[in-house]
Amino acid sequence: MMRQVERIKEFGGWLERWQHESETCHCTMTFSVYLPPQAATQKLPVVFWLSGLTCTDDNVRVKAGAQRYCAELGLILVMPDTSPRGGDVPDVPERYDLGQGAGFYVNATQAPWSTHYQMYDYVTRELPALVEASFPVIPGRRAISGHSMGGHGALICALKNPGMYASVSAFAPICNPVVSSWGQGCFGAYLGDDKNAWEAWDATCLIKVGAPLPSALIDHGTADEFLAEQLFPQNLQAACTARGIPLTLRMQDGYDHSYHFIATFIGEHLAFHARAMAS
Amino acid sequence: MMRQVERIKEFGGWLERWQHESETCHCTMTFSVYLPPQAATQKLPVVFWLSGLTCTDDNVRVKAGAQRYCAELGLILVMPDTSPRGGDVPDVPERYDLGQGAGFYVNATQAPWSTHYQMYDYVTRELPALVEASFPVIPGRRAISGHSMGGHGALICALKNPGMYASVSAFAPICNPVVSSWGQGCFGAYLGDDKNAWEAWDATCLIKVGAPLPSALIDHGTADEFLAEQLFPQNLQAACTARGIPLTLRMQDGYDHSYHFIATFIGEHLAFHARAMAS
Repeated sequence: MMRQVERIKEFGGWLERWQHESETCHCTMTFSVYLPPQAATQKLPVVFWLSGLTCTDDNVRVKAGAQRYCAELGLILVMPDTSPRGGDVPDVPERYDLGQGAGFYVNATQAPWSTHYQMYDYVTRELPALVEASFPVIPGRRAISGHSMGGHGALICALKNPGMYASVSAFAPICNPVVSSWGQGCFGAYLGDDKNAWEAWDATCLIKVGAPLPSALIDHGTADEFLAEQLFPQNLQAACTARGIPLTLRMQDGYDHSYHFIATFIGEHLAFHARAMAS
Repeated sequence: MMRQVERIKEFGGWLERWQHESETCHCTMTFSVYLPPQAATQKLPVVFWLSGLTCTDDNVRVKAGAQRYCAELGLILVMPDTSPRGGDVPDVPERYDLGQGAGFYVNATQAPWSTHYQMYDYVTRELPALVEASFPVIPGRRAISGHSMGGHGALICALKNPGMYASVSAFAPICNPVVSSWGQGCFGAYLGDDKNAWEAWDATCLIKVGAPLPSALIDHGTADEFLAEQLFPQNLQAACTARGIPLTLRMQDGYDHSYHFIATFIGEHLAFHARAMAS
């Protein structure tokens, strides 16, 4: 049973927040959805947005400016939380980069995380099914995007589910988490010490072993304070080049890691997804 | 001496945050400014944005989506704080609607407020002079807008300074603060018990006594949770009608008091100001 907890008019459509008991994450999950004006009379394609470390479903809906473009393009935008939440859910309150707010869109295999931290199954199975059952979406007409940890999440969701998403895009994704300290911290906790097991959850590693990539658009900012130590776009680019996989990876001069960077290019990303889902 | 404390690239321009020792407010004041790409090569008109209760300079720059339109229209956007700040500045920490974050854009006359709470002089005198001395603006080519407390602030700045602003606009302004509890709380503290003194700081009262209004655009949401008890647009409308003053006051069906409402219509407001400043 989903319950609506908020409904705000915006750009002629409705920004809604919903809660439900997740069978996958074994806790109450919150997500937001923007229904553009066109959704009142027709079924529409859907873009899933995966947010970055520390975010909830609220950050993107407040900061990205995406709803304006969704209203122009006729896209539904679904914005899940970044992890399971609640008093029963394991957490490391003194760390922003592990536990609640840092689910990394993987299925945890290790105690105490594995009971709740099943964000991959949540965003690729439970949530799409809920969305298709509850909102006026064209079944199967999906794209996925995200930021930082969520940009990487978008990439692995696409790479691990051929045909499920018409297109994938990412802002400042952590392209190769097995070599970044953010990725290593979460993967070690959620997946255990066997680094071979990590590679099934790393976009660059998946490309190397032949996972197919749908139409893809990635933006990084050259002034991103995390670019050199956490993001490693050159590794993803090299893996794609070695496999002959086309990838549009743009280095945007002077932009940082913030939502001001996302706001600048979100319109291009949403137009990219609208085109991919129309074809 | 102004010092730049932040500089973020956005929509090809620069979102900057500055601090300076204010001669008017006798404390360190912070403001943000968005310089669109055109500012690199030419002087531009300026829109001042006055924020609402509890806000700093950060809320509008993160939530309104204004920078995109400023980049399209070639407008500089200046975003001051909503009050003086700091350990020496009087405050009522348990109240969101009095003291720091609630300057109401008046000049306080009462102790302990009067030393620092001179926001009217700050936003109409000190800040415009600083902006004209520091950024590539066309001198005197100004407009002003704002939200809620700041929407009212924009109105009184325009009403009390004929010719200073080409145009004024407001989102969900407190139109008649002398009859709203938010206005009464601040005016009583900052201006004292004599309610006659309040009327010089109330937009509806100023209209009644003949203050001239420049080209004006006001939007209220019909689902605004503060509409009936705090905002009183009908009082402003009646005062304008009685004086024969043209006023575009729109009741936007279904919209609330939030930045989602502002985001929906900020593009129209900025285009309105761009046209007024071009003529």
